[in-house]
Amino acid sequence: MTEPIRIGIVGHGNLGRGVERALAQSPDMQLVGIFTRRDPSNVSPVGANVPVYALDAITQFRDRIDVLILCGGSKNDLPEQGPALAALFNTVDSYDTHNKIPEYFGAVDEAARAAERTAVISVGWDPGLFSLNRLFGEAILPKGETYTFWGKGLSQGHSDAVRRVPGVKAGVQYTIPSTEAMDRVRSGSLPQLSTREKHTRECYLVLDQGADAKAVEQAIVTMPDYFADYDTKVHFISEEELRRDHATMPHGGFVIRSGQTGTDSKQVVEFSLKLDSNPEFTASVLVAYARAAFRLYQQGQHGARTVFDVAPGLLSPKSPEQLRKELL
Amino acid sequence: MTEPIRIGIVGHGNLGRGVERALAQSPDMQLVGIFTRRDPSNVSPVGANVPVYALDAITQFRDRIDVLILCGGSKNDLPEQGPALAALFNTVDSYDTHNKIPEYFGAVDEAARAAERTAVISVGWDPGLFSLNRLFGEAILPKGETYTFWGKGLSQGHSDAVRRVPGVKAGVQYTIPSTEAMDRVRSGSLPQLSTREKHTRECYLVLDQGADAKAVEQAIVTMPDYFADYDTKVHFISEEELRRDHATMPHGGFVIRSGQTGTDSKQVVEFSLKLDSNPEFTASVLVAYARAAFRLYQQGQHGARTVFDVAPGLLSPKSPEQLRKELL
Repeated sequence: MTEPIRIGIVGHGNLGRGVERALAQSPDMQLVGIFTRRDPSNVSPVGANVPVYALDAITQFRDRIDVLILCGGSKNDLPEQGPALAALFNTVDSYDTHNKIPEYFGAVDEAARAAERTAVISVGWDPGLFSLNRLFGEAILPKGETYTFWGKGLSQGHSDAVRRVPGVKAGVQYTIPSTEAMDRVRSGSLPQLSTREKHTRECYLVLDQGADAKAVEQAIVTMPDYFADYDTKVHFISEEELRRDHATMPHGGFVIRSGQTGTDSKQVVEFSLKLDSNPEFTASVLVAYARAAFRLYQQGQHGARTVFDVAPGLLSPKSPEQLRKELL
Repeated sequence: MTEPIRIGIVGHGNLGRGVERALAQSPDMQLVGIFTRRDPSNVSPVGANVPVYALDAITQFRDRIDVLILCGGSKNDLPEQGPALAALFNTVDSYDTHNKIPEYFGAVDEAARAAERTAVISVGWDPGLFSLNRLFGEAILPKGETYTFWGKGLSQGHSDAVRRVPGVKAGVQYTIPSTEAMDRVRSGSLPQLSTREKHTRECYLVLDQGADAKAVEQAIVTMPDYFADYDTKVHFISEEELRRDHATMPHGGFVIRSGQTGTDSKQVVEFSLKLDSNPEFTASVLVAYARAAFRLYQQGQHGARTVFDVAPGLLSPKSPEQLRKELL
């Protein structure tokens, strides 16, 4: 029996709780503790007897943790925590601000290299598994097009946006991929699809007392960047309905590569996810990549890495021999 | 502009021709020539001016070829050619006898290590991309089940089997996955599925003159290993229909991982292929992995490897910076 990989969790929102639960399914890993910027006594771990520490105390754990899983947000937490913690620990995070990834990679890479640590950034499903499938698609079928569809799923960013509209008390937003557009893609006809053709949006909202439903709806469907380019449906519901029917965080999506080989052969590769719980799935991906991060570190591969740099076998607790025998 | 990767093709059946065509879509690669055990004058390359050489002459090309793509069969060609050529060149092959992979890996690994060369074995879609998805599925969702379905597609092995039945002049066999079984899997209900429930088989046959259709059908549907465990439909058609409707080699399939995270969240990951041409797609995968094989060789990573050992970024002609910016 080899020693378990010792894991620390930084941040205990939905994602951090998901990591706790995913670790419970991974017998080769051991949770050392949860680190928080809040008062530790206000954090309730999922597991009994899981210690909670103040994030400030984390330097004392340098020799007691093999990999830190960073569960903070991309906007406010990771830009600072990612590089700072990669200077002390091996890390895995789910940084997902796509257009700032090169900059973030650079900052984390510099810190991790200097400290001779390994940091795998932007892990999850998009960026993450979807990115891998975009890469496989175009590397294998260079002549073709890649299409990414998201949903049906609850979008955190768009839900936040509708909740900021005056008159909205509470609510959620779902992104819905167009079945018609996906079928056109799957046919191999390589369609050009507008933003409006690929997805629709649906909002389920609770209004403030006395709010003007028409005005709220208008403010949402015309909101630039978030809704103006889409067909959006707005439903008004009661607080009870919101609690009863919209409390979970389902999500998913599709990456489809449609290509042509040889004379004119249509080849379609499709990857899809149908997730009851978006944060729990992302957490499960983070845990598998934590295993890989520790192995890369053991191999002396320091610095920042992404899913593109990680040999898939490193994600599995099985040995290379076992993988070849059982899964190849 | 970096130097192109110089490729040799060994064997020129459907797969070898597919590799020729896939190389034509890869500007970073250059075809040096085709090597054959047949009389080179009997081989007709797809491309004009592609030289054809006797396989015996291949030792003269050691400094002129970066990677050899082995396009022979797993039964008679690769067990001998794989280790022999890995002692001279970097190689990629599509060895697909699943239960003999550990043995084949060992033989190729020994030859490649001794010669300080890199050999990526068992590349294609199954083994290959399907294997990767089986690995990702169980590494990310350890609590769950993986299901592989094949088809709809022409199965070479089963087509050979029906053609050996007395009274059969010509014919093909299609493997068809059960839509009902797949829907049960996608629902997350983790069904136990028998062989008969997962796939059906259909044969399209041309009879010898005077052959007994009933006897032929009976011989096929009761054939052990190949058909006895399946529901099989046998259709008798004319030679013209066979030529007109059954001349291409479509295939495909599905790898579905259905798992549970957290308290009880169902999470379903699905990968699928819909291929007009099975050999052309397999060839395209081989070409992408030839790129990776050469890069591993340049990094000094000698010996045998499988898709599990290859970081996905190595498949792409793009730089790591480009991949992070464009695809992550």
